[in-house]
Amino acid sequence: MTLRQAQGPDPRLSINQATIKYADLATALRVTADAGVQSIGLWREPVNEVGLDVAARMLADSGLRFSSHCRGGFFTLPVGPEREAALDENRRAIEETATLAAAGAEGSAAVLVLVAGGLPAGSRDLIGARERVRDAIGALADDAKAAGVTLALEPLHPMYASDRAVVSTLGQALDIAADFDSAVVGAAVDTFHIWWDPQVLEQIARAGREGRIATYQVCDWKTPLAEDVLLSRHYMDEGVIDFGSLTRAVIETGYNRDIEVELFNADIWADDPAHVVARTVESFGTAVSPHLP
Amino acid sequence: MTLRQAQGPDPRLSINQATIKYADLATALRVTADAGVQSIGLWREPVNEVGLDVAARMLADSGLRFSSHCRGGFFTLPVGPEREAALDENRRAIEETATLAAAGAEGSAAVLVLVAGGLPAGSRDLIGARERVRDAIGALADDAKAAGVTLALEPLHPMYASDRAVVSTLGQALDIAADFDSAVVGAAVDTFHIWWDPQVLEQIARAGREGRIATYQVCDWKTPLAEDVLLSRHYMDEGVIDFGSLTRAVIETGYNRDIEVELFNADIWADDPAHVVARTVESFGTAVSPHLP
Repeated sequence: MTLRQAQGPDPRLSINQATIKYADLATALRVTADAGVQSIGLWREPVNEVGLDVAARMLADSGLRFSSHCRGGFFTLPVGPEREAALDENRRAIEETATLAAAGAEGSAAVLVLVAGGLPAGSRDLIGARERVRDAIGALADDAKAAGVTLALEPLHPMYASDRAVVSTLGQALDIAADFDSAVVGAAVDTFHIWWDPQVLEQIARAGREGRIATYQVCDWKTPLAEDVLLSRHYMDEGVIDFGSLTRAVIETGYNRDIEVELFNADIWADDPAHVVARTVESFGTAVSPHLP
Repeated sequence: MTLRQAQGPDPRLSINQATIKYADLATALRVTADAGVQSIGLWREPVNEVGLDVAARMLADSGLRFSSHCRGGFFTLPVGPEREAALDENRRAIEETATLAAAGAEGSAAVLVLVAGGLPAGSRDLIGARERVRDAIGALADDAKAAGVTLALEPLHPMYASDRAVVSTLGQALDIAADFDSAVVGAAVDTFHIWWDPQVLEQIARAGREGRIATYQVCDWKTPLAEDVLLSRHYMDEGVIDFGSLTRAVIETGYNRDIEVELFNADIWADDPAHVVARTVESFGTAVSPHLP
């Protein structure tokens, strides 16, 4: 056992609840706190399963910080009732984020992660879909500001551009965010989605200069990809991503908040949640902690 | 039947031999010519199966233009005998390209497509691998120039960045090409690989300004991706790519050569080659021809 492991989990590590997808909220809070991890990112579905007020009390009782809420977005629908319903869902997610951030321990972050959404069925109009993302954020910015919530627009890997997120690079997310107050609209910086980008280091630096790094998330990439490519995320010591250069670039911007690990992976989901948290702690300590101040 | 179909295949369509992967060279040339298609892109393996001289005679006898040779590259190995062997293979591929271009009908192109290669086993050094691509092209540029061959560096979709091609965007390919004469090093512009890029239209325009569009290739993207993501390429009327904006952008640069269709797809490979060519002709006529002058 190394000294770092003997000292316990990295104090900046946050377990994103999707990493232990099949744990209910009570279990997720318990296994996270029991492992000595100090922070958690939550998802809307398990929160709403118990109700927001109960979830907020459970979070407060856990003593954990709250690092982000997942997720809003799905903004690419054309004008109509479905789009309005999606915007209303986002407004509820903003309120949840504010409530949970207030309930979490000191240092919690009122950050709502946004996944843009894919092309509407039958459409080839990627440019139009991207413009609708900007418009939708514009429709939500006042609500977010009033609630004290930062919207974290997440660029997703280009392999998801058609069916999940038409925002594909950090540079593109920053271009959209540039229309808005940086306290209200930022970007999610997730190594899995952006590691391949030839511009990644300069765009991380830019995101820092512009005050837009709303959350930093880490997980690893390896091939062959899972049959469902959504589930190809791995512990940080199993793939090919250079966490050193990316993490140092984020830290150099002055980012000093929690770092989430979000693993979509069928094998990990089938594992015991306490073991998953322990492996996450281990791989974070190996791959990420050495690059933190 | 539309007028265009009645007039036969688009005169600029070229069938890349990988689209009918299991056809030998004789069959590939025959089904392409029989369909009234005027051009073909070849692969090294079926050419070398019959020998270069025989292949060149067969190509000449077919009356087809030669639009590109696939493929060289695999440049990311560190210094050592494996890297030297790879460079020697590329030199043979350059010679093949020159010979086949001379054997093809008037309007043939001496273009060798290069796939950069992925990360070496166990490496997380993406930036280093990318530098080695530049170095390898430098080692081949004089050979290509002497042979009158243009090296077409192909950016591959970022989902292949770790295991197949560390060159992931057209902008990145152009940055590498910028160190070399534009007659010697250009880029392959393939809709499948770059359609998602928020900078795609400006980078196509830049590629044109810089004289770097060595070949334009089209095929479609749809989800879910094939289990082997390499085999997710589709006929141009089956997916989500906007061939209008991309094709117009390429044409506006003055690109006036053949347009290849290269389909890696297990279902298409299992189909009758003549039928595959007919479906390619059809989907090209529907999705691409309307955007040509």
